[in-house]
Amino acid sequence: MSTVLPEDSVGLVTPQIARFDEPLALACGRSLASYELIYETYGTLNSAASNAVLICHALSGHHHAAGYHSPTDRKPGWWDSCIGPGKPIDTNRFFVVSLNNLGGCNGSTGPSSLNPATGKPYGADFPVLTVEDWVHSQARLADRLGIQTWAAIVGGSLGGMQALQWTITYPDRVRHCVDIASAPKLSAQNIAFNEVARQAILTDPEFHGGSFQDQGVIPKRGLMLARMVGHITYLSDDSMGEKFGRELKSDKLNYDFHSVEFQVESYLRYQGEEFSGRFDANTYLLMTKALDYFDPAARHGGDLAASLAHVTADYCVMSFTTDWRFSPARSREIVDALIAARKNVCYLDIESPYGHDAFLIPTPRYIQGFANYMNRITC
Amino acid sequence: MSTVLPEDSVGLVTPQIARFDEPLALACGRSLASYELIYETYGTLNSAASNAVLICHALSGHHHAAGYHSPTDRKPGWWDSCIGPGKPIDTNRFFVVSLNNLGGCNGSTGPSSLNPATGKPYGADFPVLTVEDWVHSQARLADRLGIQTWAAIVGGSLGGMQALQWTITYPDRVRHCVDIASAPKLSAQNIAFNEVARQAILTDPEFHGGSFQDQGVIPKRGLMLARMVGHITYLSDDSMGEKFGRELKSDKLNYDFHSVEFQVESYLRYQGEEFSGRFDANTYLLMTKALDYFDPAARHGGDLAASLAHVTADYCVMSFTTDWRFSPARSREIVDALIAARKNVCYLDIESPYGHDAFLIPTPRYIQGFANYMNRITC
Repeated sequence: MSTVLPEDSVGLVTPQIARFDEPLALACGRSLASYELIYETYGTLNSAASNAVLICHALSGHHHAAGYHSPTDRKPGWWDSCIGPGKPIDTNRFFVVSLNNLGGCNGSTGPSSLNPATGKPYGADFPVLTVEDWVHSQARLADRLGIQTWAAIVGGSLGGMQALQWTITYPDRVRHCVDIASAPKLSAQNIAFNEVARQAILTDPEFHGGSFQDQGVIPKRGLMLARMVGHITYLSDDSMGEKFGRELKSDKLNYDFHSVEFQVESYLRYQGEEFSGRFDANTYLLMTKALDYFDPAARHGGDLAASLAHVTADYCVMSFTTDWRFSPARSREIVDALIAARKNVCYLDIESPYGHDAFLIPTPRYIQGFANYMNRITC
Repeated sequence: MSTVLPEDSVGLVTPQIARFDEPLALACGRSLASYELIYETYGTLNSAASNAVLICHALSGHHHAAGYHSPTDRKPGWWDSCIGPGKPIDTNRFFVVSLNNLGGCNGSTGPSSLNPATGKPYGADFPVLTVEDWVHSQARLADRLGIQTWAAIVGGSLGGMQALQWTITYPDRVRHCVDIASAPKLSAQNIAFNEVARQAILTDPEFHGGSFQDQGVIPKRGLMLARMVGHITYLSDDSMGEKFGRELKSDKLNYDFHSVEFQVESYLRYQGEEFSGRFDANTYLLMTKALDYFDPAARHGGDLAASLAHVTADYCVMSFTTDWRFSPARSREIVDALIAARKNVCYLDIESPYGHDAFLIPTPRYIQGFANYMNRITC
């Protein structure tokens, strides 16, 4: 074999599909009669099944977190910097499971899947999901894989919310929780940005109330705008400034509305257009709603410490200095609640210019701190 | 007369129109053969014409800055908190001029005006304007009103950019410059937010390349989205949190994409819809472009101090602690350049929870500091 895959890569991986035919009751009151989850695994499950790590993905993520699907892939999975032999989530020690969430558009059952009851895509008829729904669906995947207790559940952003919810919903099934660049609930500003993204999609005439697949179109404009506004919130003002400044696209100004004057406009339009060609609009709506609804303290009158009273996991919380989508202050809310609930927690705030995206970028202090924590986990 | 207008109001005001038939050469290389500016005045011009204050408006502002158009108006002009007898811009002392900028949609010639050459609305054919173009058009209004030198030019946000540009373009015609919640140029993030707003409008099928008036429609969805994203940047995360938190619109969650779950969604949609019914889409594009292009230091290789070398005005710069659209750091860039250029400048950073909108809100320290500065101006 003459592949040129890096030495510290998990190498070639093949996604697998797990099918579940027992109905899944959902927070919205509806249920899904059956569903499939697509997932990948890296490393080897030990005989005690005590070395399993679950990766939970963020808004636009999916199951392909590490390695390559083919030797000619230009890029590895989305978190390859953190998963692999010798990396923070060390596949020499851990058996790593990474799935595409229910409701996704990368192979798990979601709005673009065929509804067996109608023979047509679910579209807008796919139920709205919550983080807790995802946790239940992931618990079934754990059962299927023979994993009673996760050595760790790890996630960034919306993925961190799932990791936190796991420790609350299934306290005896998670030994460690790594919660990165996340928040215990969205702020009004967070919800507002999500609402702009949703309105961009919902008001796109090609959305057709979510039944765009039946019409043979996609709400490309709405998805593009949603991604553009999202993308701004993933980067810091500083990192955008460093990357683009006020660099002009061409030598002189065009003085019209259509031309791209500044490099940052070109970058954003590219990001938006590329995304609109590969992501499902209904999944995007669903993901933003799951974010909005997440609020584990709500059942305890807003007291997060009370909602964590019965958890048993050991926590590692990490944040990044220039992240303004989920700022370090939001991570500290989680840390403070864990301390108030007398739980084990270590917290690392990492100097980084990359804003919210920093959780995907292998800055040395992040990688080292992450590795140190993971290396302490016994399997 | 039995009006119930407040004692500290300038009272009933009537807009006036000034018509200019001498062509105005523009930065884009084109010129406007003729144009009208709508404006209001408050107070009385003294015999030396030495007490005139020009108000420059921000992105969605207009000429109606103070007082009432009719005794039944529910609201006064947009900056009534700062303009009137005994207020910071004290109409007992000053003669205040407030106009709707060229390219606007509140009575001055703009994209929705009839193009005399075609008999149809200008639409997308209206030239793109810069802050300096506005300053030239405002100088002609000053000439018309017999004002050789402004006692002060005052503006917030994009209005502050006009005030600053005045001191550079016409250094002998401005004695004082009050530059509030502004910046010497947009950051990449600022441009990125503008670009999202523009793409929302440009990709609205009812924009029709800017000729929507000819089609009898308006790009309501695009304008709504543009305003929603803009509005988020005017408020601080904290003020949105205080105002809305995660308050639900109704008692329980709806678990669908269309219902309004949180109060902040309801507020944003209302703001967007209200705006889309009263503002011109081409004007919105034009205003965002004027913001993007503003960069007085560009002619001096990025050296703002050099671009201010010949100014003679005395400056007051004010910023607000929670403003993240034009943060205090951006105001300090202006202050630092003025200091480097050995100019007179006083700077006030004001503790306020209201984000960028703070320049419109009469918090005591702001009003007092603003009044102190204005009261020192000799007329």
